[in-house]
Amino acid sequence: MAIRLGANQYGKAESRVVRIYRDTPRHQIRDLNVSTALRGNFADAHTTGDQSDVLPTDTQKNTAFAFAKEKGIGAIEDYALTLGAHFLDASPAAEGARISVEEYAWERISVDGAEHDHAFVRGGSGVRNTIVNVEGRSADRRAYVVSGISDLVVLKSTGSEFHGFLKDKYTTLPETNDRILATSLVARWRYDHTEVDWDKSYDAIKQLLLSRFATIHSLALQQTLYGMGEAVLADHPEVAEIKFSAPNKHHFLVDLSPFEVENPGEVFIAADRPYGLIEATVVRDEASDAGSAWHAVPGFC
Amino acid sequence: MAIRLGANQYGKAESRVVRIYRDTPRHQIRDLNVSTALRGNFADAHTTGDQSDVLPTDTQKNTAFAFAKEKGIGAIEDYALTLGAHFLDASPAAEGARISVEEYAWERISVDGAEHDHAFVRGGSGVRNTIVNVEGRSADRRAYVVSGISDLVVLKSTGSEFHGFLKDKYTTLPETNDRILATSLVARWRYDHTEVDWDKSYDAIKQLLLSRFATIHSLALQQTLYGMGEAVLADHPEVAEIKFSAPNKHHFLVDLSPFEVENPGEVFIAADRPYGLIEATVVRDEASDAGSAWHAVPGFC
Amino acid sequence: MAIRLGANQYGKAESRVVRIYRDTPRHQIRDLNVSTALRGNFADAHTTGDQSDVLPTDTQKNTAFAFAKEKGIGAIEDYALTLGAHFLDASPAAEGARISVEEYAWERISVDGAEHDHAFVRGGSGVRNTIVNVEGRSADRRAYVVSGISDLVVLKSTGSEFHGFLKDKYTTLPETNDRILATSLVARWRYDHTEVDWDKSYDAIKQLLLSRFATIHSLALQQTLYGMGEAVLADHPEVAEIKFSAPNKHHFLVDLSPFEVENPGEVFIAADRPYGLIEATVVRDEASDAGSAWHAVPGFC
Amino acid sequence: MAIRLGANQYGKAESRVVRIYRDTPRHQIRDLNVSTALRGNFADAHTTGDQSDVLPTDTQKNTAFAFAKEKGIGAIEDYALTLGAHFLDASPAAEGARISVEEYAWERISVDGAEHDHAFVRGGSGVRNTIVNVEGRSADRRAYVVSGISDLVVLKSTGSEFHGFLKDKYTTLPETNDRILATSLVARWRYDHTEVDWDKSYDAIKQLLLSRFATIHSLALQQTLYGMGEAVLADHPEVAEIKFSAPNKHHFLVDLSPFEVENPGEVFIAADRPYGLIEATVVRDEASDAGSAWHAVPGFC
Repeated sequence: MAIRLGANQYGKAESRVVRIYRDTPRHQIRDLNVSTALRGNFADAHTTGDQSDVLPTDTQKNTAFAFAKEKGIGAIEDYALTLGAHFLDASPAAEGARISVEEYAWERISVDGAEHDHAFVRGGSGVRNTIVNVEGRSADRRAYVVSGISDLVVLKSTGSEFHGFLKDKYTTLPETNDRILATSLVARWRYDHTEVDWDKSYDAIKQLLLSRFATIHSLALQQTLYGMGEAVLADHPEVAEIKFSAPNKHHFLVDLSPFEVENPGEVFIAADRPYGLIEATVVRDEASDAGSAWHAVPGFC
Repeated sequence: MAIRLGANQYGKAESRVVRIYRDTPRHQIRDLNVSTALRGNFADAHTTGDQSDVLPTDTQKNTAFAFAKEKGIGAIEDYALTLGAHFLDASPAAEGARISVEEYAWERISVDGAEHDHAFVRGGSGVRNTIVNVEGRSADRRAYVVSGISDLVVLKSTGSEFHGFLKDKYTTLPETNDRILATSLVARWRYDHTEVDWDKSYDAIKQLLLSRFATIHSLALQQTLYGMGEAVLADHPEVAEIKFSAPNKHHFLVDLSPFEVENPGEVFIAADRPYGLIEATVVRDEASDAGSAWHAVPGFC
Repeated sequence: MAIRLGANQYGKAESRVVRIYRDTPRHQIRDLNVSTALRGNFADAHTTGDQSDVLPTDTQKNTAFAFAKEKGIGAIEDYALTLGAHFLDASPAAEGARISVEEYAWERISVDGAEHDHAFVRGGSGVRNTIVNVEGRSADRRAYVVSGISDLVVLKSTGSEFHGFLKDKYTTLPETNDRILATSLVARWRYDHTEVDWDKSYDAIKQLLLSRFATIHSLALQQTLYGMGEAVLADHPEVAEIKFSAPNKHHFLVDLSPFEVENPGEVFIAADRPYGLIEATVVRDEASDAGSAWHAVPGFC
Repeated sequence: MAIRLGANQYGKAESRVVRIYRDTPRHQIRDLNVSTALRGNFADAHTTGDQSDVLPTDTQKNTAFAFAKEKGIGAIEDYALTLGAHFLDASPAAEGARISVEEYAWERISVDGAEHDHAFVRGGSGVRNTIVNVEGRSADRRAYVVSGISDLVVLKSTGSEFHGFLKDKYTTLPETNDRILATSLVARWRYDHTEVDWDKSYDAIKQLLLSRFATIHSLALQQTLYGMGEAVLADHPEVAEIKFSAPNKHHFLVDLSPFEVENPGEVFIAADRPYGLIEATVVRDEASDAGSAWHAVPGFC
């Protein structure tokens, strides 16, 4: 009965890299959470404890900070691609590098109607992120980019129905043609290639997701998500597929009749748990091969 | 050796009350987290278990939801004042009622440049809140309002020094005349009375706090906070005093010299723990008596 | 209209101090979360930015770590008292020092039935903590110790009733003579003096709280808490008073009748929010003066 | 350019099911967090909004509670297998059901040395869990069970080295032959079949993981994890493979030399972020096919 090492990966998680650009009085800030990992032929490190192939996680962290200055931080996708390629080169035993980056948005503080040069307030909706996987050497080098947004909390106060569903002996849910629909959206889309204007693509996709959420008359969260994804693929040829993970954040109508108060869709309790959880993928048939693009991406079917 | 009941308080915490105004196609949403509590002569409930003076926490919750429709939700201060007065009237044994409300901000989703009627995205900076204490009966009725903001995350990338401090044998901190200053601000201000345009006052104070944070050249977080508070008191006669609780969210300059990379204030690591914690109060001499205004307010000296 | 500094306090929060005793092969571990703060005459630091009276929070942190070796860590109360006295001495402008310490419990891993010398697993129930306030100089030096436990999650599956309560038009709660009673207890007790065997007192009080929770037939969480506190004061003359903050973690009986399934107190849903919140103090009449013992203690009425 | 639905899954997450057994005065409690999901041919629900194939998530929740009484809750694996088979039968369009259950441990409160009949305190180390996937109909029915433990926080104060690693220009980490090794372990093991005494297997594997963590002289966290996994596979023929996800919770030796205090491995700061993150799988060659066993399991490479 032979026992052996299977899939493995190691790295440094959640390095909080903050880069200030101060070449002019009008500073810029990039505020990142960076996780890097290597995978490959690291059997000795596990079975005998020989670490000679292991680039320490501490070194990975150092590199993430050093590159913030040496290479700079533009779009997080470019920063992640650069780090991934570097780590694969720096680690002969590695077969793949996985770089995950979240970016926190800062807005300039307004003073007397003007944006301040170097004072900021955390703001905005949702957290931008990317997961980059780089594999192969020389001509076989391939890079995969999955970008996305998390914690995008949206709500419709009408324009949402849910009925006609399958019923069995445990079904008590009443059908409704008017309910609140709310979710804390996680969306991740796989780019077909890396020749992309990352910031422009992200901004447009985020806006498209929001506007489709608003305008689709919902018959179920599934149908809303599909419509959102379909719109992204239709408008963005650079996107091969998009995945959603969306809790159905229930808002239950409160029964005020014991107090002789009517409640025609006006007072709700926002519930915590349990919650519905809807996961869905929208793809195009002729999409490029996903390769390792979705390697170790959490929370998706 | 006589043992007896001392200070006590009971209530229902964190009712998530969501109110939709849908009288016109352009819906409005108020999204609240409501905690209510009563205090007073409840010795029997504790010592013998006789609950005849106890208005159940479940009833308090019901009332919070019912009032969302019966009385409506305008400014959270008005909603809290109404609830507090009601509970004191409904509970003869109570000497005081404490109502705490947080409000989560929603922005309308923009579709083709226009604000959508009934689709929203959670956004904004900081969480507005109020704590109302109501005491006394008939002519002795008094109400105290402490409003505030929490989770207001701000950062200055320059314009912050720290030097000239006291040193002892355990001091290793280098003096600096240029550092990042960042905090996740909690501010709470006590209103001198209740004849206030709550929304207008809140909006102006929030903007003033932000702009003063931006423009004060900082010699310490203490001095920045004091300047912010002083500005609020100077501009807002309706405010008797203001309290701050502000973690100094350290951003440490990363030493890149081992890699022969210079780092003139450009690359930082955002640290989690430990953090500085600065608490300060700014008051005006002739302020009204605080009474029970600060009753059970967490996190302030 | 004179504006001035009011109450203020500054320090370093949440230094994660871990001390290993390794004088023998059987190591011991003390795992602490330490927060220190000074208060007093720090007006200049706030109003002009002059920091010459300010012992930096960084120095406070250094001292907490250095004392872990220089003075050692026995009972957290002793460690906190030592730190508090030191900081007051080191800071001429300070009028008081506040030291808050949490301790995380580790159990030895069992290997073949024997406790391992240097391998541990985090375990146990509840988190032990202390808050020490030291004030005054020379003969006026006073120290106050409030110790406690948090996150002590307990549940009774029967032996709990709730009925006979006050009713108004918003009351819908049915009376019950059998329900689940559960809480995540926070208890803090003030010691009458500092001549205490801290570890022994803590262990006995924790055990007493648990056994009284178990054996009191509950007519309300208030009555259970009072009985627990009364037992502590009766058995522990070193304790002057005890305060509780206890969420009523509701477990609602699930209605299975739509499925023709009976549910005689067997299947419950554990709810998140809202929750009851009960706060109560049990004191003895002849207790010593509390002084600043409860200074800035969060979450208590 | 054809756009279509890809992988999808929907269900109810985090139903907090609490079951009390009260047939004798000595009550028993099972405290679960249950998430259920269905996947399969749900294209219509997404593309046209037709929900006729969709068993509502609310019904899934109802069933989880009803089965707690109808079928009872023994080992969480059995409960999950029963739910999974039921949902697949109840949903003709489904191809697979995924049931995830966490169980929270309660210990009896000790009163005068005896275990109490119906009073409990939350305790223990780590959270037991299982993820069950059921697929296929009639003779093709297959069930996969992955069980595990999370939040198992362990620490060794010596017996851990790290040296001989790969170095590049960004490497500054000193080699060490004595450091603290600590992690918050997540381990999940796939059972080869379902003819298992689940409770007995879980208890033995947990104990084996702990004792191997204690006794392996560590040359790296990778090598410790491999040794732990190897021991599980060697002793447990019912286990086909085991996966680990283990943050390296850094404890950094504090430099006390500025204060002329020696620190020979005695005072450490427990760091939050960044942290190393080590993921590894240990498998046996002749293991059964994994099928959908690892479907949508978060946090593993």
